[in-house]
Amino acid sequence: MDRPGLFADATASYAESQYVILGIPFDRTTSFRPGARFGPDSIRQHSWNFESYDLETGTDLADIPIHDLGNAGEFGSAEEMVASVRTEVEPIYRDGKVPITLGGDHACAPPCVEAFPKGRPLSVLYLDAHLDFRSSYLGDARSHACSARRIAERVGVENIVVVGVRSVSKEEIEDNRSLGLTYISAHEVAREGITATAKRALDRLSPESVYVSLDIDVVDPAYAAGTGTPEPFGLAPREIKQILDTVAPRLVGMDIMEVSPPYDQGNTSALAARLAREAILRSHVARGKP
Amino acid sequence: MDRPGLFADATASYAESQYVILGIPFDRTTSFRPGARFGPDSIRQHSWNFESYDLETGTDLADIPIHDLGNAGEFGSAEEMVASVRTEVEPIYRDGKVPITLGGDHACAPPCVEAFPKGRPLSVLYLDAHLDFRSSYLGDARSHACSARRIAERVGVENIVVVGVRSVSKEEIEDNRSLGLTYISAHEVAREGITATAKRALDRLSPESVYVSLDIDVVDPAYAAGTGTPEPFGLAPREIKQILDTVAPRLVGMDIMEVSPPYDQGNTSALAARLAREAILRSHVARGKP
Amino acid sequence: MDRPGLFADATASYAESQYVILGIPFDRTTSFRPGARFGPDSIRQHSWNFESYDLETGTDLADIPIHDLGNAGEFGSAEEMVASVRTEVEPIYRDGKVPITLGGDHACAPPCVEAFPKGRPLSVLYLDAHLDFRSSYLGDARSHACSARRIAERVGVENIVVVGVRSVSKEEIEDNRSLGLTYISAHEVAREGITATAKRALDRLSPESVYVSLDIDVVDPAYAAGTGTPEPFGLAPREIKQILDTVAPRLVGMDIMEVSPPYDQGNTSALAARLAREAILRSHVARGKP
Amino acid sequence: MDRPGLFADATASYAESQYVILGIPFDRTTSFRPGARFGPDSIRQHSWNFESYDLETGTDLADIPIHDLGNAGEFGSAEEMVASVRTEVEPIYRDGKVPITLGGDHACAPPCVEAFPKGRPLSVLYLDAHLDFRSSYLGDARSHACSARRIAERVGVENIVVVGVRSVSKEEIEDNRSLGLTYISAHEVAREGITATAKRALDRLSPESVYVSLDIDVVDPAYAAGTGTPEPFGLAPREIKQILDTVAPRLVGMDIMEVSPPYDQGNTSALAARLAREAILRSHVARGKP
Repeated sequence: MDRPGLFADATASYAESQYVILGIPFDRTTSFRPGARFGPDSIRQHSWNFESYDLETGTDLADIPIHDLGNAGEFGSAEEMVASVRTEVEPIYRDGKVPITLGGDHACAPPCVEAFPKGRPLSVLYLDAHLDFRSSYLGDARSHACSARRIAERVGVENIVVVGVRSVSKEEIEDNRSLGLTYISAHEVAREGITATAKRALDRLSPESVYVSLDIDVVDPAYAAGTGTPEPFGLAPREIKQILDTVAPRLVGMDIMEVSPPYDQGNTSALAARLAREAILRSHVARGKP
Repeated sequence: MDRPGLFADATASYAESQYVILGIPFDRTTSFRPGARFGPDSIRQHSWNFESYDLETGTDLADIPIHDLGNAGEFGSAEEMVASVRTEVEPIYRDGKVPITLGGDHACAPPCVEAFPKGRPLSVLYLDAHLDFRSSYLGDARSHACSARRIAERVGVENIVVVGVRSVSKEEIEDNRSLGLTYISAHEVAREGITATAKRALDRLSPESVYVSLDIDVVDPAYAAGTGTPEPFGLAPREIKQILDTVAPRLVGMDIMEVSPPYDQGNTSALAARLAREAILRSHVARGKP
Repeated sequence: MDRPGLFADATASYAESQYVILGIPFDRTTSFRPGARFGPDSIRQHSWNFESYDLETGTDLADIPIHDLGNAGEFGSAEEMVASVRTEVEPIYRDGKVPITLGGDHACAPPCVEAFPKGRPLSVLYLDAHLDFRSSYLGDARSHACSARRIAERVGVENIVVVGVRSVSKEEIEDNRSLGLTYISAHEVAREGITATAKRALDRLSPESVYVSLDIDVVDPAYAAGTGTPEPFGLAPREIKQILDTVAPRLVGMDIMEVSPPYDQGNTSALAARLAREAILRSHVARGKP
Repeated sequence: MDRPGLFADATASYAESQYVILGIPFDRTTSFRPGARFGPDSIRQHSWNFESYDLETGTDLADIPIHDLGNAGEFGSAEEMVASVRTEVEPIYRDGKVPITLGGDHACAPPCVEAFPKGRPLSVLYLDAHLDFRSSYLGDARSHACSARRIAERVGVENIVVVGVRSVSKEEIEDNRSLGLTYISAHEVAREGITATAKRALDRLSPESVYVSLDIDVVDPAYAAGTGTPEPFGLAPREIKQILDTVAPRLVGMDIMEVSPPYDQGNTSALAARLAREAILRSHVARGKP
């Protein structure tokens, strides 16, 4: 008897788990095409598409203790969602586990970072087509257009690197000039190659504790049409994989946001499920090595 | 104010117009499948599908002075939307014109009613699969699940009739018991026929000033799949047309809400455009007669 | 925290439940368009679309003890599926509960009937566009084209009535001549009306224990496009509702089969969820009356 | 044997033909999203998309004698399909022609290889995202998850090379360790380039008689969304073309499997048709040269 809707291979109890999945079906701040509220369940469904064994690391996902908490409830406002997600995620960190949250729009990412224990060093790799660096958007400081800004306020602007950007507002660029956010555009990745740019990004991040916030729109729409604000000229899945592989040994938490199932026939969900697996596998293998 | 592709035959200036179209691309309060924010432009696009001459009334839509204001802006919250829509719609009534607003989720309807001049009698025909009579939903009094309640507060609960209901919450029924909202369920329409039930509904409404709020989900999903909360056992388009034809002579304003283009290939938008035309044509013909 | 993927309002434990939902994601015997394996989870997802209160019976679904067992596993053959489903469903009957199974192709229905305790009278209302009365199809006696035949073998051919038929093979008609299956075609329903034909069907069934097997293709494709073998000239949802309402007081078990999500945008799943609710509500209300 | 819309330029009689197309609309063993049964007719339909003249080889497809046998019948089990396909394909080889079979799920490939005359050397290039090397899957040795294993048993494990793999089970890898299947992963192709890896693969194959089994999921889902088990990180169409161009002079048979039309709007079918043409053209040109 399967439990319908859970992530494939999420068979461990919470107590014995190392990785903990939480869905956040919230998309009220989406500025263009909504639908990301259906992301968590669709990513889970497509996680069943894959074999459990990983060719590159020689590891079987079935041997990694993963627990799936299900979905956070439905919320009337972003503030409510933020408060609730923080409450859900805090014990995961406290218990020494790695939260993997599935969105939902990118507004769901900041509370996952804010729940990290204060006092411990933390840096954030923010993979996104947009800078998400507005102070406020349409009067809403918790909009998905402000998520990198909110995260920078929590971890310090020097501890976040945005990779894959190709769409920004004038205000963001001006704010950025004074505030000094580091970002690497998709154009730079294309010009310099993923190996060099990934290295440049990762050198800026904490050697120990990196949180990865992955907006699926960082990927080119050819590979990930199922998202709310598709942006041409994006990265290839293989490039995202290479960054994840490199950063995984330092992984303390991760989110995958903005998968919007109504806009394709499931392939973006399949890609998201695969990227979650990839991060879990690489992180697990690295942890196993003393 | 954007200027997207305008409604077919909306060629009059504002000054000379009798009917004024306004799009409200807002769907943040949608509780199930979002996408109604794309409704206004999709309805406009599909309005070009039709010939301008109407066989039944012998009237050419091209001879009716219609103006299309374009879309209201993007909003961060329902409160903001409500305030802005009121400001947009008030002058339309004041100038003796009939506003036809295109949503957007049903949260966009109350401000269109609230903008009507106080002191003048007004009653509301509310066509919907749901009662929308919650006091508040997920902490949001401006949710689309509360729109009939908000309208009842404005016009008086005795001046609103809901037709086509087939999905309600227990709280709504209990509130309704004390507050006394009149509704005619879809089951009653099926049992008694549209002619009898439409008469029953219209007899309760003001003989002069009726506002029609049309949630496209009142129609059966077989005819209107492109909506956020599809409900089986709905009315046929022909039944809706019959109600509209009957009420049109008293029409002072109208909205068509909850058309969600991602969920079909355009047929729901075409139906909505056709129903807007129908109301305009019938109203215009009746006005012409002293 | 929602449990993702479960049927709405299925909040009771198994012990306290009266209705027990089980998904059977199996579609290997589908003869035309496959995809019904995704039916159970899609029906569940769309069950969240609806308000929990029922206008007609004055009952709140939230007050009815429903449990959702999740899905039966994946199977390599129909024989394996049949054996496993029987094992799952037998204790549900034994514990005095009503199983509501969600398919899957119609091959998933016979084991749900076969699990019913021997010795107790049982009759079956089989709602389907097809007769499903082949002895064997493509060498497979467990094909979905043979389901009514298998069920007739279990309950006796005199205890099954097929309603809504509009597509049969010559062999089925010839076999039927000698074996004497009662069926009422969709054409008869159209000619004589649903009230008369439903009465005719139900008069033939046990006054106490009726199992309902509902192939969603009994409904016209205008309302239920998401199915494997769509057949024009079908029944309207309202007609199915009327039959279900009438038979519900005698309900001991039910299945809803052949919902194939890839073939529409969700409305067939929403209809199936609504019909399951309808049967549960009406059955529960009838049980409450001594 | 049906006669559906035939492959473009398949105008030759069987007797005069050099290439013989056969559709196998069977997908009962598909493990995730079914629909490949509609592959053959959809590939044929999209074959009409292309001009018949090939720029690179200076050859007109219309001058190549191609015959289209239509589709094999419908089958109740994989065993039945295997027996029937063997019977259909054996005379094609015997008559000195090249069979090009269109699936259908990958379970349809082994009988096409098994039909090859015993005693003649044969090696197989197996292009696939998966290893398909299970001994049995869900109790079914003829599942599409076992196809490379079945083929290896026929031609000898030393005479098959799998290219493009990026999803395997632990059992497959362990079995592979003892049985010694050669494979080149998609990651290796990405690292080393297609030219080097194609050479490495082809060096292992018979200099005379190569059969190509092409599971369309070897291609990245960005280019081939219409398949049952999409796997990110796949090869580009251009890379597949390069392998096919290189191997075509040795081609004795080919299949194209797992095109599942419900999951895109035709692009995967068009790609499959184009790859079939490519192989035929290159093979024909090579044969013409003494």
